[in-house]
Amino acid sequence: LATRLQGIAPTIFSEMSALAVRTGSVNLGQGFPDEDGPPAVIAEAVRALEHGANQYAPGPGVPALRHAVARHQQRHYGIEVDPDRQVVVTTGCTEAVASALLGLVDPGDEVVVLEPYYDSYVAMIQMAGGVRRPVTLRAPDFRLDVDELRAAVTPRTRFVLLNTPHNPTGTVLTRTELQAVADLAVEHDLVVITDEVYEHLTYDVEHVPIATLPGMAERTLTLSSAGKSYSFTGWKVGWATGPAELVAAVLAAKQWLTFTSGSPLQPAVAVALDEEPDFPARLCASLRERRDLLLDGLHAAGLAAYVPQGTYFATASVRELGWADGMAFCRALPERAGVVAIPSQVFYDDQADGAGGRDLVRFAFCKARGVLDEGVARLGKAD
Amino acid sequence: LATRLQGIAPTIFSEMSALAVRTGSVNLGQGFPDEDGPPAVIAEAVRALEHGANQYAPGPGVPALRHAVARHQQRHYGIEVDPDRQVVVTTGCTEAVASALLGLVDPGDEVVVLEPYYDSYVAMIQMAGGVRRPVTLRAPDFRLDVDELRAAVTPRTRFVLLNTPHNPTGTVLTRTELQAVADLAVEHDLVVITDEVYEHLTYDVEHVPIATLPGMAERTLTLSSAGKSYSFTGWKVGWATGPAELVAAVLAAKQWLTFTSGSPLQPAVAVALDEEPDFPARLCASLRERRDLLLDGLHAAGLAAYVPQGTYFATASVRELGWADGMAFCRALPERAGVVAIPSQVFYDDQADGAGGRDLVRFAFCKARGVLDEGVARLGKAD
Ligand SMILES: CSCCC(=O)C(=O)O
Ligand SMILES: CSCCC(=O)C(=O)O
Repeated sequence: LATRLQGIAPTIFSEMSALAVRTGSVNLGQGFPDEDGPPAVIAEAVRALEHGANQYAPGPGVPALRHAVARHQQRHYGIEVDPDRQVVVTTGCTEAVASALLGLVDPGDEVVVLEPYYDSYVAMIQMAGGVRRPVTLRAPDFRLDVDELRAAVTPRTRFVLLNTPHNPTGTVLTRTELQAVADLAVEHDLVVITDEVYEHLTYDVEHVPIATLPGMAERTLTLSSAGKSYSFTGWKVGWATGPAELVAAVLAAKQWLTFTSGSPLQPAVAVALDEEPDFPARLCASLRERRDLLLDGLHAAGLAAYVPQGTYFATASVRELGWADGMAFCRALPERAGVVAIPSQVFYDDQADGAGGRDLVRFAFCKARGVLDEGVARLGKAD
Repeated sequence: LATRLQGIAPTIFSEMSALAVRTGSVNLGQGFPDEDGPPAVIAEAVRALEHGANQYAPGPGVPALRHAVARHQQRHYGIEVDPDRQVVVTTGCTEAVASALLGLVDPGDEVVVLEPYYDSYVAMIQMAGGVRRPVTLRAPDFRLDVDELRAAVTPRTRFVLLNTPHNPTGTVLTRTELQAVADLAVEHDLVVITDEVYEHLTYDVEHVPIATLPGMAERTLTLSSAGKSYSFTGWKVGWATGPAELVAAVLAAKQWLTFTSGSPLQPAVAVALDEEPDFPARLCASLRERRDLLLDGLHAAGLAAYVPQGTYFATASVRELGWADGMAFCRALPERAGVVAIPSQVFYDDQADGAGGRDLVRFAFCKARGVLDEGVARLGKAD
């Protein structure tokens, strides 16, 4: 194994989803819905398959999808991007993150990043030889502490890697918090890379793309995908948008990672964005009800979860159930209760006893009501 | 742009396919067929889309496909691999190459590699901080010179990156040539990474996987894909097979590059491998006729092409047409003749005047007869 990968554990999502399959557990772990997205979008993928969209798509993505992504940015946020120079299609947001970091980060560059971190950020910063500078969102409200943010910046800082709505905490950064990031970025000439895959999944609060703040469009690379917004996580169709030279850096790396992918799926995602613009809002309304159902169920099972403002994840401490270690809890849970959840400690640098994330567990609520009911009922009966 | 990508030109395939679209040229450049693979395979993808294979596939690939790949290795070559530990599904062979190099190569490690090189090899060796040590296949027969091969190995050499059948030359390495590589690998304890995407496309010669040579199974990582064998280049479903620890290194990198991809396409590729085992041979027979048609046409147009033993590419020198620079020839060709081809010089380190690949141009023959006829007719009439 190459040095760049040493000390990086396999992604928790593979471990926990494999455990769910093996034990026949209710999977409230990995974030994928159990209902697919719009039938019209599937119909378009079928049409593409049957009518010859089966050979290499252009490296930057099929033009119809690049144009649809540009229209999406305009429609939802008033952001103007040139579909030919400021949009690149990737194999899900994962590849957008990987390509952005490999395409931009040099060894020794510091990257300020919100902790708890989605696991690929840590791995890819390390693979790029970068140094992560955590800014920790702390229970119970998981807000951004602007003083900590400022303190994380050094003369070697070149990037801020944001994630809003934030996985796993559900925090949606406010305009005020984002303005603090923007001020710092301008002051220190930083590039902001922002993973906004949960952009359409917020509850009672507004998602603000940092690219819309004054002076930020020219220094922000925005990443997203169809996976979460349109419930096609397995299609892995994502994109990066922003200034031409940042998008070019993503393409420069991506062309060697996969070259291109999902030829018959790309036109279908274009149809999703153009012809189903209201689907994400409907999904969000339904997820909001399921969030509350999960929160009530967790409460009844003795777990007081923090209320997420966005994403489809809720976090709870397992201390109230007498556990100090969320990893031990999650590894035992399938046998004890037939439920799988994600130990949030893997998203923290410090996983020692008593450390911030040690006792936190993340539950996904992007599941059918019956599944959520069954999951929380099982949790309540765990011995 | 990060240092690791500096000095690497954008992939020639993007430039040339964009040029083909812009000029309405006959595209004999990028290697993709103009006829899709088996209808039964498309039907399976449709079934998967309509019956819910739309969320994340497992990181290592869907079990049905991993098992089908293992059966494929057994059926065609007698190679036994454990589908759970010795097969990983990737986003095409491109991602298998990228993951193998990022997962195994440390900065300063030397990689012996056949020149002319498929362009992603050079880029990914550089991105991994490795040092390429070329062994050049030279016109007119493009054979492997075993003395040159031995001379390329130094105490820092850790890998040999093979490609057989070889793109762009069409060379299919013989058992004798491969035995020389194997001897060297055993002697110097090297790992062989072998890209065998054209494994089923050989003309009158046998494709020998180096993993089948004595002592090589335990040190060979074999990469392939459904793109070329089943004419679905846009699906980007590939795989790596080999010893568990080498496959684990591929997965260790890949999980952060894309995590997974093509959920509805993976089961369809499993059906291709299991239920259409003879498709590649039929494709190959048809390609053989089209190869000869292209060779005759090139000859009539004044270009004596080298006869490829494998792949779907033929190489010719443009000297006979009075050109010394294949790049200049290919850039002018769309306007002059309405044809796109690939300048092989981009696959060589030395692109200077008089250097080995300077005058070589690659033509793809994976096109319908009418397209090939039209292409060579246009070439013949070029002013
Ligand atoms: C790419 S697998 C993880 C899916 C996800 O986004 C999550 O569960 O956090
Ligand atoms: C991945 S784009 C290039 C396709 C190909 O294999 C070739 O044309 O050589």
